[in-house]
Amino acid sequence: MNSFVPQEAALKTNSPQPVHLETAVEMILQYAQPVGTGKIGIRSALGRVLSEDIHAPVNLPPFNRSPLDGYAVRSEDIAGATTDSPVLLEINKEITTESNGNGKVELGKNQAAIVMTGTPLPPGADVVIKLEDVRKIEQKIEVVSPLPAYSNYCFAGEDIRQGERVLSKGTVIDPSSVGILAALGISVVPVYRRPKVAIISNGDELVEIDKQLKPGQIFDSNSYTIASYVRQVGARPIMAGTVGDNTELIARRISEMLKSADMIITTGGVSVGDFDLVRNALLSQGVKILFHRIAMRPGTPALGAVKNGKLIICLSGNQAAAFATFHLLAIPAIAGLMGITRPPLTITTAVLHDNYLKTSTQRNFLRGRTFFDEGVLKVKLAEKQNPGIIRSTLYCDALIDVPADSAPLQAGTRVKIVLIPSPWLQQN
Amino acid sequence: MNSFVPQEAALKTNSPQPVHLETAVEMILQYAQPVGTGKIGIRSALGRVLSEDIHAPVNLPPFNRSPLDGYAVRSEDIAGATTDSPVLLEINKEITTESNGNGKVELGKNQAAIVMTGTPLPPGADVVIKLEDVRKIEQKIEVVSPLPAYSNYCFAGEDIRQGERVLSKGTVIDPSSVGILAALGISVVPVYRRPKVAIISNGDELVEIDKQLKPGQIFDSNSYTIASYVRQVGARPIMAGTVGDNTELIARRISEMLKSADMIITTGGVSVGDFDLVRNALLSQGVKILFHRIAMRPGTPALGAVKNGKLIICLSGNQAAAFATFHLLAIPAIAGLMGITRPPLTITTAVLHDNYLKTSTQRNFLRGRTFFDEGVLKVKLAEKQNPGIIRSTLYCDALIDVPADSAPLQAGTRVKIVLIPSPWLQQN
Repeated sequence: MNSFVPQEAALKTNSPQPVHLETAVEMILQYAQPVGTGKIGIRSALGRVLSEDIHAPVNLPPFNRSPLDGYAVRSEDIAGATTDSPVLLEINKEITTESNGNGKVELGKNQAAIVMTGTPLPPGADVVIKLEDVRKIEQKIEVVSPLPAYSNYCFAGEDIRQGERVLSKGTVIDPSSVGILAALGISVVPVYRRPKVAIISNGDELVEIDKQLKPGQIFDSNSYTIASYVRQVGARPIMAGTVGDNTELIARRISEMLKSADMIITTGGVSVGDFDLVRNALLSQGVKILFHRIAMRPGTPALGAVKNGKLIICLSGNQAAAFATFHLLAIPAIAGLMGITRPPLTITTAVLHDNYLKTSTQRNFLRGRTFFDEGVLKVKLAEKQNPGIIRSTLYCDALIDVPADSAPLQAGTRVKIVLIPSPWLQQN
Repeated sequence: MNSFVPQEAALKTNSPQPVHLETAVEMILQYAQPVGTGKIGIRSALGRVLSEDIHAPVNLPPFNRSPLDGYAVRSEDIAGATTDSPVLLEINKEITTESNGNGKVELGKNQAAIVMTGTPLPPGADVVIKLEDVRKIEQKIEVVSPLPAYSNYCFAGEDIRQGERVLSKGTVIDPSSVGILAALGISVVPVYRRPKVAIISNGDELVEIDKQLKPGQIFDSNSYTIASYVRQVGARPIMAGTVGDNTELIARRISEMLKSADMIITTGGVSVGDFDLVRNALLSQGVKILFHRIAMRPGTPALGAVKNGKLIICLSGNQAAAFATFHLLAIPAIAGLMGITRPPLTITTAVLHDNYLKTSTQRNFLRGRTFFDEGVLKVKLAEKQNPGIIRSTLYCDALIDVPADSAPLQAGTRVKIVLIPSPWLQQN
């Protein structure tokens, strides 16, 4: 980057008034609309977002059924049953799963029908007696106690009623949703298209991992972290490689990516000292700048822009800064493009496990890792919090929102946090 | 299922003494060993489990570098700088990113070198002054205040030191791990093979979702829910379809699946009234039964077995029972096969949001959904808790562990829960 020499003028345009994070997110969300819809088979639907409400086409269960293994009987027939004067009921062998399903054969007076967990109940029966609670004597059963009508009786539709809304537009199809769709016999569902998110890393110092490092160079890692998160939330990352510190090259790569991607994320080239490389590249493409600079650390120089309705979010190249601003700015954008209707960030509070004695005049998002201590959410700080420390992002599942001008924070303080969801069985 | 008529003898063999859940898990874990290792490129490594520790092959950063944009100087040269008597330093134009990376050109006395965030610092420099804090006058800069040695100075290896263990064997490669591997220039990593988990649904009443329902039939849903969770945690589901209530057919399907799968999960055919269909099928295959029946509800009749070192876990066909026992028994097994070394279930406590006034002489796992209330984990009960209610599994992310013979639980009670991880941006 040493070929660039700072100019007073450039430095000034580089320092617009920072906006609040919440304002930046609001601006981004205005452009974060779903990118299209389609249909998908439920075997491939895990993680996709429903583009329409799903109503139950049938009752669940589809018929009145037995919740256990036993005998379906009429409650009136056994009303007087006692150990001393048991009631004998005849087993009606004509009643089978199929006849019950059809509702064809009615259970007659003083009859019993053998039923299993989940099998339909014959018309006439209003009670099921547990297998263990009767004595079978050849083709008869002996009942020794009464049961109120509709004991051990599952009604058709008591789980899910035909016509009711089961899953909502804008929700992610998770494993239990897939199961419920199958139970309802819905094999194909309407979903939003997965947005394509292009990721570009800017910086003369960056090398792709399959190349050899030269002096002063480092491997690009931001693309990898960001692409992995994009994939994890259910969108489609396009790794668009690294670009040197050259306005024209950056502009060209962005313009190429705008053809196929639904959104672009860049890292690097937005700091004061980067002389507005990315900003100038964007302006040369006739892009509308939404904001540049956010009142937070790390990642202050973040920039949001729009071209042809497509969002371009430009983050600092410092790995911890890119990490924090990706989650705070880009995840809400991606969630919007995916069609997710819930607020994309889970914000709550947690108890700080460590002291954090540094103070700052700026709002600061620290990297941390949550754990439960008897149901109380606690958060352990990453050891080093400098924006260039990639280690602080490892297993980080919470950003701790420390307001500007906070006093030093003692362990035990309750702090505001933004949670980063993780699917994985717990890490160390 | 009505073709089967209960026999006293069969009923007796069907009711072995239930084991504790923890005992069952312990027995399962003895056989839950990783199924092999391989190598994978980091672009495809998300969600895979490391089969070896990863040590840093290089320092991060690889060189002493600047944390900001400014001028590298010698602290001794500016020791006396004040506003009234500023120090003038000459910019050494020979010092470039490349020369710094090589460490070739030393910064001379009363010299300054322009540096950007992340660029190497030249030998001799021990301080970086912010761009904004100096005045540039042609080829010189004017410094008006001193800085202690090693201010704004990042040491090589201060993030990650060459040789140190960065990622551990048995941990899942999450997005930030992918980024750290990239930063270290590690493009290929050793991982465990993804275990193949075959899923079989037993029951005459079951129909696959692309078929037409006949009277008394229902769609298979357990296979779909379980396959989706298997995929979500990072293993490979094999949907092995449905099998009728026939010992021989079940035995044949299990035996087929044992050829290719690393583990088998079945649902259905294990209840008392199912006359030990699955148990008999397993015994006909010379399988070793580890346990049959667990002292918990729902899902009491669960069975664990082993054949040729491969686990076979057989669950109740009731959807909520299959759901609970899948998470409590099969997830630990899958985690073991995947090579994950952490305890697979996250157990903590939460505050009950609702009353649960039913009492039971059995340990009961209720389905619930967690949320944070100011950092306190609370859990909302699914409305209906019968084992046949599939709706209770929707967005369920916690199983509430209610001990046998508990008194009625009032809202506000602290309860023990098992968490089910979810990657998705929050559902409604």
